[in-house]
Amino acid sequence: MSEPPFTSPLEQTVVIVGVGLIGGSLAAAIKIRNVAQTVIGVGRDAARIEAARACGLIDEAATDVTAVVGRADLVFFCTPVDRIAKDVRLAELALTGSTQKSTGNPNTLFTDVGSVKEAICTDLVDVPRFIGSHPIAGSHHQGFEAADPQLFEGRMCVLTPLKHLPEQVDRLERFWSAVGMRTVRMSPSAHDHSLAMTSHLPHVVAAALASTLTTENRSLTGTGFRDTTRVAAGDPDLWTGILLNNANSILNGLDDLERQLSAFRNALSAQDADAIKKLLKAGQLSRTALDESRRGFD
Amino acid sequence: MSEPPFTSPLEQTVVIVGVGLIGGSLAAAIKIRNVAQTVIGVGRDAARIEAARACGLIDEAATDVTAVVGRADLVFFCTPVDRIAKDVRLAELALTGSTQKSTGNPNTLFTDVGSVKEAICTDLVDVPRFIGSHPIAGSHHQGFEAADPQLFEGRMCVLTPLKHLPEQVDRLERFWSAVGMRTVRMSPSAHDHSLAMTSHLPHVVAAALASTLTTENRSLTGTGFRDTTRVAAGDPDLWTGILLNNANSILNGLDDLERQLSAFRNALSAQDADAIKKLLKAGQLSRTALDESRRGFD
Repeated sequence: MSEPPFTSPLEQTVVIVGVGLIGGSLAAAIKIRNVAQTVIGVGRDAARIEAARACGLIDEAATDVTAVVGRADLVFFCTPVDRIAKDVRLAELALTGSTQKSTGNPNTLFTDVGSVKEAICTDLVDVPRFIGSHPIAGSHHQGFEAADPQLFEGRMCVLTPLKHLPEQVDRLERFWSAVGMRTVRMSPSAHDHSLAMTSHLPHVVAAALASTLTTENRSLTGTGFRDTTRVAAGDPDLWTGILLNNANSILNGLDDLERQLSAFRNALSAQDADAIKKLLKAGQLSRTALDESRRGFD
Repeated sequence: MSEPPFTSPLEQTVVIVGVGLIGGSLAAAIKIRNVAQTVIGVGRDAARIEAARACGLIDEAATDVTAVVGRADLVFFCTPVDRIAKDVRLAELALTGSTQKSTGNPNTLFTDVGSVKEAICTDLVDVPRFIGSHPIAGSHHQGFEAADPQLFEGRMCVLTPLKHLPEQVDRLERFWSAVGMRTVRMSPSAHDHSLAMTSHLPHVVAAALASTLTTENRSLTGTGFRDTTRVAAGDPDLWTGILLNNANSILNGLDDLERQLSAFRNALSAQDADAIKKLLKAGQLSRTALDESRRGFD
């Protein structure tokens, strides 16, 4: 999946607002692949963002996006999903102001990395330079110290453009491809329906399952329990924002899951070996088909 | 966690009935750590068991436990849980017969590796040389080709003795320790209650979740979905036996899980951020405590 680094950068100056695991990994991927000339990181905690600069992850550190957005060609908002729209508006206001003083770049593009898209894209429909993105990559680790330049390699990035100019969308798509991702375009609502099933519901299930573990049973877990509940270690604040912003689709997903669990319950109560085996085979088939479909991407 | 190999074997001849992933890994661990002089593998498929011998995993191959049990000091029954009791009885019958011809070892010990214990140990209560074991180690891979001599390293093995002589139990415990395991003694029913929560329920949940994935959504899964559903790839035949033999405890576990899922459902329906965060924090706390408690064992 590895592509040769670009010989000349795609963008001059990229601003990354929120330099945690995702923002930090994006910065690392950009530097290693030479996809932008300059990476400016923005973080609310001056000491933290300066630490990210000191270790070479970003070229410049700032604590306020409004101070640097005028120099940006491309801005990634990597803040929690319930802060993205607000942060974009602050930047837009600053940029529109500064454009009049002719320091701003009228072609500046905004995007984000949020795991929900409909609420954000609907909110920002009047900011045409904003196009929603969701790079499906991550980990339960937190902070830029866990940044991984390979995090995006071979993974899927969903773009959710609305009435954007094709050249804007193409430009953003080229950038995500340049940091190693495959890309697909979807409507924000289709994205949210799908991600409810592939990410948000699994998170709920993992958290619920983790909560059923008693202290006494900890030593009797194997790799199965640990795999099944791994994502439950994720940041509750981040995930509260995600779940709240996609509640209806997740509730529908819970209905689907409950139907499956009820079928298991009935089969177990009836000691019906054939029914149990059929349910397990359906799960196995789906899971192994997933591995097959991903062969070559991981 | 690594211990130096034993300089002299603990047992002369070990028979492993069922040389798949677990039996094969046990054979590999025994050879590498020099825990037994001779390992005889028993498999129903003559070509397969001969292949395991040809690649050096076992010293001798047999297709019938009754032909080799007379030479055994210790026999591991690594067959599916619904075959273990039957296989043990066949071996016991052969051994009792051969003992009268004085070739059998009266001190021969039997154990198993089954993920359920109450049904098996109750069934075999009249075979005092049988002590139940459950090494909590495994993988969704199948077959001796995936055998891993490190599979048991630092993992927990539950022994479920009933009215056995302390020296018998000590001897079995020493053997499991010698292949790298920590050991604990529990009643068969306590084992089954715990494993319902730490292994069997997670398997059901993973299978149910995997079944909710549509073909279209496959490309939109990340590592989270794949971790959460990984065990669903396990062999449906093996798992049908396990689930059937522990149905009541799993049904109780499903009740626990449903309570957690209902709490999420209510919080999502009410758009109650505090309630969602509280549920996620409980899951995170439990999951990170699990990692802490296992530090140094993996």
